[in-house]
Amino acid sequence: MSQPTRDLLETFPNPFPQRDYIVDTVCPEFTSMCPKTGQPDFGTLTISYVPDKLNYELKSLKLYLQQYRNHGAFYENVTNTILDDLVAVTQPRWMKITADFTPRGGIRTTVIVEYPERKIR
Amino acid sequence: MSQPTRDLLETFPNPFPQRDYIVDTVCPEFTSMCPKTGQPDFGTLTISYVPDKLNYELKSLKLYLQQYRNHGAFYENVTNTILDDLVAVTQPRWMKITADFTPRGGIRTTVIVEYPERKIR
Amino acid sequence: MSQPTRDLLETFPNPFPQRDYIVDTVCPEFTSMCPKTGQPDFGTLTISYVPDKLNYELKSLKLYLQQYRNHGAFYENVTNTILDDLVAVTQPRWMKITADFTPRGGIRTTVIVEYPERKIR
Amino acid sequence: MSQPTRDLLETFPNPFPQRDYIVDTVCPEFTSMCPKTGQPDFGTLTISYVPDKLNYELKSLKLYLQQYRNHGAFYENVTNTILDDLVAVTQPRWMKITADFTPRGGIRTTVIVEYPERKIR
Amino acid sequence: MSQPTRDLLETFPNPFPQRDYIVDTVCPEFTSMCPKTGQPDFGTLTISYVPDKLNYELKSLKLYLQQYRNHGAFYENVTNTILDDLVAVTQPRWMKITADFTPRGGIRTTVIVEYPERKIR
Amino acid sequence: MSQPTRDLLETFPNPFPQRDYIVDTVCPEFTSMCPKTGQPDFGTLTISYVPDKLNYELKSLKLYLQQYRNHGAFYENVTNTILDDLVAVTQPRWMKITADFTPRGGIRTTVIVEYPERKIR
Amino acid sequence: MSQPTRDLLETFPNPFPQRDYIVDTVCPEFTSMCPKTGQPDFGTLTISYVPDKLNYELKSLKLYLQQYRNHGAFYENVTNTILDDLVAVTQPRWMKITADFTPRGGIRTTVIVEYPERKIR
Amino acid sequence: MSQPTRDLLETFPNPFPQRDYIVDTVCPEFTSMCPKTGQPDFGTLTISYVPDKLNYELKSLKLYLQQYRNHGAFYENVTNTILDDLVAVTQPRWMKITADFTPRGGIRTTVIVEYPERKIR
Amino acid sequence: MSQPTRDLLETFPNPFPQRDYIVDTVCPEFTSMCPKTGQPDFGTLTISYVPDKLNYELKSLKLYLQQYRNHGAFYENVTNTILDDLVAVTQPRWMKITADFTPRGGIRTTVIVEYPERKIR
Amino acid sequence: MSQPTRDLLETFPNPFPQRDYIVDTVCPEFTSMCPKTGQPDFGTLTISYVPDKLNYELKSLKLYLQQYRNHGAFYENVTNTILDDLVAVTQPRWMKITADFTPRGGIRTTVIVEYPERKIR
Repeated sequence: MSQPTRDLLETFPNPFPQRDYIVDTVCPEFTSMCPKTGQPDFGTLTISYVPDKLNYELKSLKLYLQQYRNHGAFYENVTNTILDDLVAVTQPRWMKITADFTPRGGIRTTVIVEYPERKIR
Repeated sequence: MSQPTRDLLETFPNPFPQRDYIVDTVCPEFTSMCPKTGQPDFGTLTISYVPDKLNYELKSLKLYLQQYRNHGAFYENVTNTILDDLVAVTQPRWMKITADFTPRGGIRTTVIVEYPERKIR
Repeated sequence: MSQPTRDLLETFPNPFPQRDYIVDTVCPEFTSMCPKTGQPDFGTLTISYVPDKLNYELKSLKLYLQQYRNHGAFYENVTNTILDDLVAVTQPRWMKITADFTPRGGIRTTVIVEYPERKIR
Repeated sequence: MSQPTRDLLETFPNPFPQRDYIVDTVCPEFTSMCPKTGQPDFGTLTISYVPDKLNYELKSLKLYLQQYRNHGAFYENVTNTILDDLVAVTQPRWMKITADFTPRGGIRTTVIVEYPERKIR
Repeated sequence: MSQPTRDLLETFPNPFPQRDYIVDTVCPEFTSMCPKTGQPDFGTLTISYVPDKLNYELKSLKLYLQQYRNHGAFYENVTNTILDDLVAVTQPRWMKITADFTPRGGIRTTVIVEYPERKIR
Repeated sequence: MSQPTRDLLETFPNPFPQRDYIVDTVCPEFTSMCPKTGQPDFGTLTISYVPDKLNYELKSLKLYLQQYRNHGAFYENVTNTILDDLVAVTQPRWMKITADFTPRGGIRTTVIVEYPERKIR
Repeated sequence: MSQPTRDLLETFPNPFPQRDYIVDTVCPEFTSMCPKTGQPDFGTLTISYVPDKLNYELKSLKLYLQQYRNHGAFYENVTNTILDDLVAVTQPRWMKITADFTPRGGIRTTVIVEYPERKIR
Repeated sequence: MSQPTRDLLETFPNPFPQRDYIVDTVCPEFTSMCPKTGQPDFGTLTISYVPDKLNYELKSLKLYLQQYRNHGAFYENVTNTILDDLVAVTQPRWMKITADFTPRGGIRTTVIVEYPERKIR
Repeated sequence: MSQPTRDLLETFPNPFPQRDYIVDTVCPEFTSMCPKTGQPDFGTLTISYVPDKLNYELKSLKLYLQQYRNHGAFYENVTNTILDDLVAVTQPRWMKITADFTPRGGIRTTVIVEYPERKIR
Repeated sequence: MSQPTRDLLETFPNPFPQRDYIVDTVCPEFTSMCPKTGQPDFGTLTISYVPDKLNYELKSLKLYLQQYRNHGAFYENVTNTILDDLVAVTQPRWMKITADFTPRGGIRTTVIVEYPERKIR
């Protein structure tokens, strides 16, 4: 299947740009393919952001994420790429994505990315 | 249906204005209409504030919120507007509204607004 | 995508056919497509059975269920069809499938099928 | 507002009429009006049934239930009426509705109705 | 304080007497006085019944139960007495009361009474 | 320490002997000594019974159970003995004790005894 | 009923005044009367403090709080007044009260007060 | 590693053989090896039984189960074999083992065996 | 019974003194006697510390805490004394004890002590 | 059994080294042997890190941790050693391991280590 494209993401003008506020979006139905095993992965994406001039439209977010259904991507890649796409399209004041994947081999993994980068060290 | 009006909100004098204290009000029965699909939305509003000279009266808050029952409003709009209305009427020292909406299309959304604005970046 | 086939299901001889015992298998990562909207559905399948001469092999069950990933099927159809397939291949003494699907439009659905049929009336 | 009508309910032919199976539908976003106080009531409807020749279509069920949004009805009335409507339209082999309403005056109420009537005494 | 009286309980005609159905009422704010220590007791009453010709009205139930607020009564007495009062006033086809009291001295107690009596032995 | 004695148990006349009803008493603060290791054991006793002519008084039950604090007894012994003592003193129509002990060596144990004996086979 | 008095509160000398430490007291059985409706209110008080020279005695705290049982007081009043009383009697280094009240009209309220005042803005 | 042997299981005389009573033993730290993949499996065993003349001793049960730590065995085999061993050694009036294994490949499995066999069909 | 002594506490050399790290120890089976009522108290102790040169040995900690089983001590005393004993014996870089006691008279209490003292005001 | 070796750990190049991000890995199936009693220990390891040039590969992490299955190690040792091994192999910007062990003798222990060392005092 072709590479997921950020072109599916639609935006609308932030109705209250005069103040910082947070929008949290929880997507418990994310699924992609493991490029190594060819097996499906499942996870919950939590996207938090402070919109600046543009908010993403929820139905387009759903369609954007569904592109990963048959796309192979490692945990770290898919989470960082989705952040890059959402940042490119909405240019938010702040954004953070937490991706919780279901267990594989008795181990479960969460990837947390943030924009602009907050030094964790 | 007509636009919800802040005129329904009633207040009483803060009985302890000499100290900062927090009042949390949780309203799990909030419902409005989606202006795009015409379908009802449901959510839980949590309002936290530090009253200054005026506290809002709870029954009037309930009636104010019921105005949204047949009113069309997007998530971001309705949350910011309720904050503006409550701030205008009570002039609090601080106020924060967290609006948790139920899932639509497998995605659920929370909007968090605060007064005075706290820079999140 | 082609129709899911029961040919992927593999079995092994029941190691303790001398007694009735129950095997419960919970598959929280089931996903299929809604034939009406073209949108993905998600659910948890719980399969309980009393094996007779044959038990299904778990990895082949996983591969069998993954066939539904890009297959369109209504809730009632998919649950009954999986029961028919598993019964045909393992010829169990008893089997029951409970399929819990995630909410759509604020409504969530569970389908429960059993073999041999137990009259519920 | 006019009386809710069962005419909104649509059906489709039961795809597996040869066996008894259960469909559970949980609707946590039910709301109606209290005819006495004029205040909104909120509840969760759980509908379980064994279809015979006809299954109800989920989107039409949602639209049917939304008719109660501005309709005044007591707990016992609304639950029994919905049962009567669903039975009339789908003629199921068995149906049960559990309606859990949110607290009023520190008291919460559940109404449970079943068809055909099972003597509880 | 005077003895609680069942005269506060009001009823309305059962709107669906043609079928047996269950009404559950949960009252988590019940409080009475311990006649031995003079200390308040707290509990949750769950009343389930199948109405015959009469249903109790919820606001009158609340006022009836509030009579126990400053009334001394042991756990077993108060639960059996409330059953007797509700049965006398509504003449139900079946009724059951479960009273869960909060811990005293590290021990918590529940009393369960039923009408008509079901032999538990 | 001396053997616990049932003499500490006090009773009062059943105020509603005309009907079978259940009293559940949950005692999460039970502790005794392991006769083998000399180490303390901890558990939760749940006592359910249908009183006949006599109910046990709760404070005396607490004092009775505290006798086990420094008394050595195996799980099966202590649970059966408490049943025997409570049955001897109150002569109930029915009684059941469930004793949940906390984990030892990664294993936790529950003992369930009933009077009159119900054949479990 | 007469006004609750702080005279019921008893203290004992802090046994470890040489260090700051926290005592949390949770009182889930608080009840008072609504002065507007005459109906009882219910809530859970959580009192946290760092004692200085005096600690409050728990049984006297219980008796002090029971004075509100038949006393009319609004949420904000009762919480601030209890803080004032406890501060006056124990002169703590720090104290905070969180009062969670049960839902009324579908809305539940929490009041949080602190001494010495911490500016929340 | 050698085959686990039931010789490690020790018993003691049932102290109350005059009545049927249940002992539940929960072992959340069971682990064995998958004979196919060579990977460790993990699970929780719940053993319930009605002792006749003999009860198993808990420490010997722990040592018996630890034999499976480096022993290869399929789910169905290990559960049925443990039942056979415990039945052979204690000759109980009734016994049931529920073995809940942790997820593998997104699927989790439970095996339930009972003695004497209860027909489930 | 004699006063609990810290002499029972044994230590071993910190195997990684080159870095600060935290050890949390949760003891849900703590019990002591109330010196006022003579009744047993129950609680959960959570001990967190950063070892310096010495770690406490867990079995000796268990034996040390069991000394309180028949020892009378108020909540604030027992918690502060245990901190003093553990600090004296292990000389940690940091230590904190949280003691959650079960409800008495409808009120439950937690005491939190820390070394070296952190000013909470 | 021989000493666990970090040689089993495999890495891959961090696909997004340009930003700090967190990877959390939860391993609920960790088991080792107590060197004192020879009994198995069980725990959940949570590893959080900010990768620099290298990420660890999950399957190799699983195989690395399985080396402890028959290896004797105390709680503090095993947790610090695993941190040292993972730091040596991946050279992360930051790493933290939380190891929650199951109860032994009624006490459960958690060890928390961090790199680079954060002074907790």
